[in-house]
Amino acid sequence: MCGIFAYLNFNVERERRYILQVLLNGLRRLEYRGYDSAGIAIDDSLSRHPNTSNHCFSPPPLLFRQAGNIESLVKSVYLEIADTDVNLEEVFHSHAGIAHTRWATHGEPAPRNSHPQSSGPGDDFLVVHNGVITNYEVLKETLVRHGFTFESETDTEVIPKLAKFVFDNASVEGEQTVTFCQVVFEVMRHLEGAYALIFKSHHYPNELIACKRGSPLLLGVKELAQDRDSDDVFQDSHSISKSEHPKELFLSSDAHALVEHTKKVLVIEDGEVVHLKDGGVSVLKFENEKGRHGGLSRPASVERALSVLEMEVEQINKGKYEHYMQKEIHEQPESLTTTMRGRLIRGGSCKAKTVLLGGLKDHLKTIRRSRRIVFIGCGTSYNAALASRPILEELSGIPVSMEIASDLLDRQGPIYREDTAVFVSQSGETADTLLALEYARENGALCVGITNTVGSAIARNTHCGVHINAGAEIGVASTKAYTSQIIVMVMVGLAIGGDTISSQTRREAIIESLFDLPNKVREVLKLDGEMKELAKSLIDEQSLLVFGRGYNYATALEGALKVKEVALMHSEGMLAGEMKHGPLALVDENLPIVVIATRDNSFSKQQSVIQQLHARKGRLIVICSKGDAASVCPSGSYRAIEVPRVEDCLQPVVNIVPLQLLAYHLTVLRGHNVDQPRNLAKSVTTQ
Amino acid sequence: MCGIFAYLNFNVERERRYILQVLLNGLRRLEYRGYDSAGIAIDDSLSRHPNTSNHCFSPPPLLFRQAGNIESLVKSVYLEIADTDVNLEEVFHSHAGIAHTRWATHGEPAPRNSHPQSSGPGDDFLVVHNGVITNYEVLKETLVRHGFTFESETDTEVIPKLAKFVFDNASVEGEQTVTFCQVVFEVMRHLEGAYALIFKSHHYPNELIACKRGSPLLLGVKELAQDRDSDDVFQDSHSISKSEHPKELFLSSDAHALVEHTKKVLVIEDGEVVHLKDGGVSVLKFENEKGRHGGLSRPASVERALSVLEMEVEQINKGKYEHYMQKEIHEQPESLTTTMRGRLIRGGSCKAKTVLLGGLKDHLKTIRRSRRIVFIGCGTSYNAALASRPILEELSGIPVSMEIASDLLDRQGPIYREDTAVFVSQSGETADTLLALEYARENGALCVGITNTVGSAIARNTHCGVHINAGAEIGVASTKAYTSQIIVMVMVGLAIGGDTISSQTRREAIIESLFDLPNKVREVLKLDGEMKELAKSLIDEQSLLVFGRGYNYATALEGALKVKEVALMHSEGMLAGEMKHGPLALVDENLPIVVIATRDNSFSKQQSVIQQLHARKGRLIVICSKGDAASVCPSGSYRAIEVPRVEDCLQPVVNIVPLQLLAYHLTVLRGHNVDQPRNLAKSVTTQ
Repeated sequence: MCGIFAYLNFNVERERRYILQVLLNGLRRLEYRGYDSAGIAIDDSLSRHPNTSNHCFSPPPLLFRQAGNIESLVKSVYLEIADTDVNLEEVFHSHAGIAHTRWATHGEPAPRNSHPQSSGPGDDFLVVHNGVITNYEVLKETLVRHGFTFESETDTEVIPKLAKFVFDNASVEGEQTVTFCQVVFEVMRHLEGAYALIFKSHHYPNELIACKRGSPLLLGVKELAQDRDSDDVFQDSHSISKSEHPKELFLSSDAHALVEHTKKVLVIEDGEVVHLKDGGVSVLKFENEKGRHGGLSRPASVERALSVLEMEVEQINKGKYEHYMQKEIHEQPESLTTTMRGRLIRGGSCKAKTVLLGGLKDHLKTIRRSRRIVFIGCGTSYNAALASRPILEELSGIPVSMEIASDLLDRQGPIYREDTAVFVSQSGETADTLLALEYARENGALCVGITNTVGSAIARNTHCGVHINAGAEIGVASTKAYTSQIIVMVMVGLAIGGDTISSQTRREAIIESLFDLPNKVREVLKLDGEMKELAKSLIDEQSLLVFGRGYNYATALEGALKVKEVALMHSEGMLAGEMKHGPLALVDENLPIVVIATRDNSFSKQQSVIQQLHARKGRLIVICSKGDAASVCPSGSYRAIEVPRVEDCLQPVVNIVPLQLLAYHLTVLRGHNVDQPRNLAKSVTTQ
Repeated sequence: MCGIFAYLNFNVERERRYILQVLLNGLRRLEYRGYDSAGIAIDDSLSRHPNTSNHCFSPPPLLFRQAGNIESLVKSVYLEIADTDVNLEEVFHSHAGIAHTRWATHGEPAPRNSHPQSSGPGDDFLVVHNGVITNYEVLKETLVRHGFTFESETDTEVIPKLAKFVFDNASVEGEQTVTFCQVVFEVMRHLEGAYALIFKSHHYPNELIACKRGSPLLLGVKELAQDRDSDDVFQDSHSISKSEHPKELFLSSDAHALVEHTKKVLVIEDGEVVHLKDGGVSVLKFENEKGRHGGLSRPASVERALSVLEMEVEQINKGKYEHYMQKEIHEQPESLTTTMRGRLIRGGSCKAKTVLLGGLKDHLKTIRRSRRIVFIGCGTSYNAALASRPILEELSGIPVSMEIASDLLDRQGPIYREDTAVFVSQSGETADTLLALEYARENGALCVGITNTVGSAIARNTHCGVHINAGAEIGVASTKAYTSQIIVMVMVGLAIGGDTISSQTRREAIIESLFDLPNKVREVLKLDGEMKELAKSLIDEQSLLVFGRGYNYATALEGALKVKEVALMHSEGMLAGEMKHGPLALVDENLPIVVIATRDNSFSKQQSVIQQLHARKGRLIVICSKGDAASVCPSGSYRAIEVPRVEDCLQPVVNIVPLQLLAYHLTVLRGHNVDQPRNLAKSVTTQ
């Protein structure tokens, strides 16, 4: 939610046109994080501001903001520039630009609520922000008392205004006495909530300050000296070159907007303030995190090494597909293969099949001794955990509790040292999951992370964990991360379960089925055409129910969630066993109902559910195992979708695919943007 | 689901008209258990059957069956009788009639699928059944091979046909050699699944046999000798009088159909076979429960004492209200008072306030030592448990796991000796909850029951428990049982929590708030008119979302369930914290959304949710604490419903009331039958 981006070129000539392009492209990469409105700020020409007062080294910036997605902004930027005498060919030796794409939390999508938010007339301070400032109302009151006039309904606007207030108070008679860093430190001292911020000010030309607490932020570094590649063996690739070397610096909410420029990154940590100035990067630690009051903080300088991104540009392109969601659905055979790579041991003539999870192996004993395993996640990640719960319980014998992260926080539910808490999050930055992690750590639980993002907050702050290695997921509706999360958690179950003789047959069957799973998913993807046909028949529906049970209770929830979030149809996933306790009242000959009834221990119960729905003349779509269509749907009065059969606990991985395809086609046919579902954004980094 | 009823008069003259009335009235009382179709069977006149073969002592019975509710049956019965020469004034000295109201599981509602189901031409054996026979397909195949022709799609039809098969095989050359009991025992030996059955056969005139496994069944006894009341001090009210005394006997799925006739009842237990013959009642135990094969079983006779119903006829009448649901919503101040009666100790000048739960006190130590508390329920009972989860966790410090009964069974989730399992069910007969109870007992957990029905299966089979004493609940949509369940579980929390000094203030505040709760509920019921107005504005909607969190997550689920089950509107309850993970995509200016935002620890988070929904132009209805309307909804752009504030953990009891009222009015305004929601039935006694 919300993407922030900045581009600073130092000692290298760049035209304004180029700078604009870099900023706008950065936003395009971050667009999946929010697309309610967008904005950028770049420098104006001195020539257009002959009267700039003498204490300013550069004129007020050019600010462009627009409601709608990035393309709306792009159009309006070039239109506005065409209307003025701004020169796109003007060359800057050094220049700092910032950009923002917004997922609206406070205030409707509109230019005044777009970022960069400003300190007021003259735009002395401009800020782009990802997160939520929880104490903004108090700050606003104070600033209003000091004469500031607010223009937006955002929580963000207090930040640049506070910066100006601090700056003005510290500047005696126009004499500038504080550094940019000092201003930002003083601002941070007053902020409560979660944020990643980038500050730009024409009082500090060609400088940028970035800081964060809670929300993610990365710095990318591209060295340009001597025209050599960054992997030159004579250069230490883990540090930044001397100040005067020509370079480009990037700040971004995530790696997607960096990878086309550089793979050398610094993952900024909570409380760090990064100052880009004169070609140098200084990292300072803001120690006053709890908002205690006192004089100006004294920052401590921090030594940080650069790391190398493991991401390829191809991963974040759509390739031959029309949409990211479509691409990610269809690449599941590959992403599942990558997830399992090196982790499944096929065994030999006299050796048992087994799994090897490097990130967990030192903690397996502790996990096995825990009194319960608590799965914690939100949205699709929660559903993935739910899908793997039965097999984890079966293999480990340990009770598994399910917790939606925000509910655990609301309740402050009991968590103890004897618990193992497993945090599941694709981005590794989900705000509620992160806060729940903090809570569980404080309560002494062993914390295990399952994420798709190396270096993410959850990956860094858990005691141990497993990366799902599904590759970058850009589609806002999670698909390939879901299936990879499930098989990682099944592997976790196998690892915890140990290799008793009684469970050996079962374990080997699961491992064998895992090896073959990518092929089965390839097979089920052939249903694409059939699901498109089905989508056509559902295009005008208002509601959809999805019934599942056992291993596929989660499939019902997740299938319904996909349809809900992208196709904007009110679909609801339900436990089939609860049907008679209310939901059955909705059933008539009009409402479409998906029933998941593939073969497993619950199959006969699901058959009975189908009969009962049939007795109520329900309009059924039954997902069943290959060969079962005739028996599950004897009268041919409803639709059967046959899917390949795999080991019961892995069946959710196969069964979700037709529902992903259904959601995708429904969305396209209904004329909505698959990759930009209404009101949503990827990685919910605010509570 | 499904109600069965029988009436047998012995040694007392009753006209056919009277017998019909008793049977039809019995069905009216049981109608809330199912209203898809109904049927009755009574005796015909010998005079109409001059050619009755000599081995029959009475002619074939009269059978009436009709799709639709009881009134449809009533009409068709009198129309059919008017068409024939059946004499309504004919007097029977002894007579056995059976009746059934159906909730369809196998086969659509139609006369052929209605009960009584028959053995075939001649109607030698007639059966009414509540439950599901799971092996009916196998039995059907066998019977078809033996020449039987099936007319219905029901699972029940195999039972009377099997009875005839057994009877015919045992009768040598028309010589009757088996007793009615032997026939039924042999039939039971073949049945798998859950059932309560009543058999009638003209081979055994004026006899009835009732048996059960899984589904509930009661016998009512009304002595008529010497015109004395049943409470005559000279008669032992716990046994049945000598055979020859005139009497009326009743069999019924529950007490509602008995209480207007008698309060002397026998709760029939699983595996018991009750034989009504010649004015006597013999109870035999069917020991061959597991369906083992062998010769004819040898039943053991069982001594059983009668018990006295604690129920008044007024409880099961609608009084001044139009519907049961309406009555039960409005009597919540009284039902809550009854639930608390004698259980809250107000304390004294130097004594602490406390709670006293007689049914639990011997087990409190064990519960306090348990490693977790597992709440198990279905539908509304599950929601009630969820509502009290946070306070139970807070007061006890023990992790509370939530289990939907059917899901626990599907997963065969781990349950151990160290667990306390709490089973919540209004009827105490919910099939899945009962099976989960069996499962938990086998695994050694301490089992606690929370039901509204004294003598119900869950009340009998748990180690300890608490009755909610809310009075008979007839409305299919549970209302007063929900609120009483919550306060019982809060009291359980107080009892488990013990009285540490640190929690004393909190405990006293809760107890004080409990005392005042009926008044607050009386106050919130004054919203009736306002909720009717709101219902009018929502009458044509297709969908409704309800957002809650913390203590009121359950309120959101339960409010949505009410609207779903009676108003037939697709409403969905959601955790507000999950809004950004998908559901927000549905939000636009058209979809009505209820947000519960009364004062508690989560209030500021809910305010933020309201702002975000507002930013998306959501059409909001906010339930807030008294005095908060203006601040929660500053622009007046959406609707605020103010409710009185009580202690946070009791707020769900107050907050659900406007949603109950909304569901009620929506249903009436949309023209549906509040007390007979489509496709549903009270007490789900089949899986």
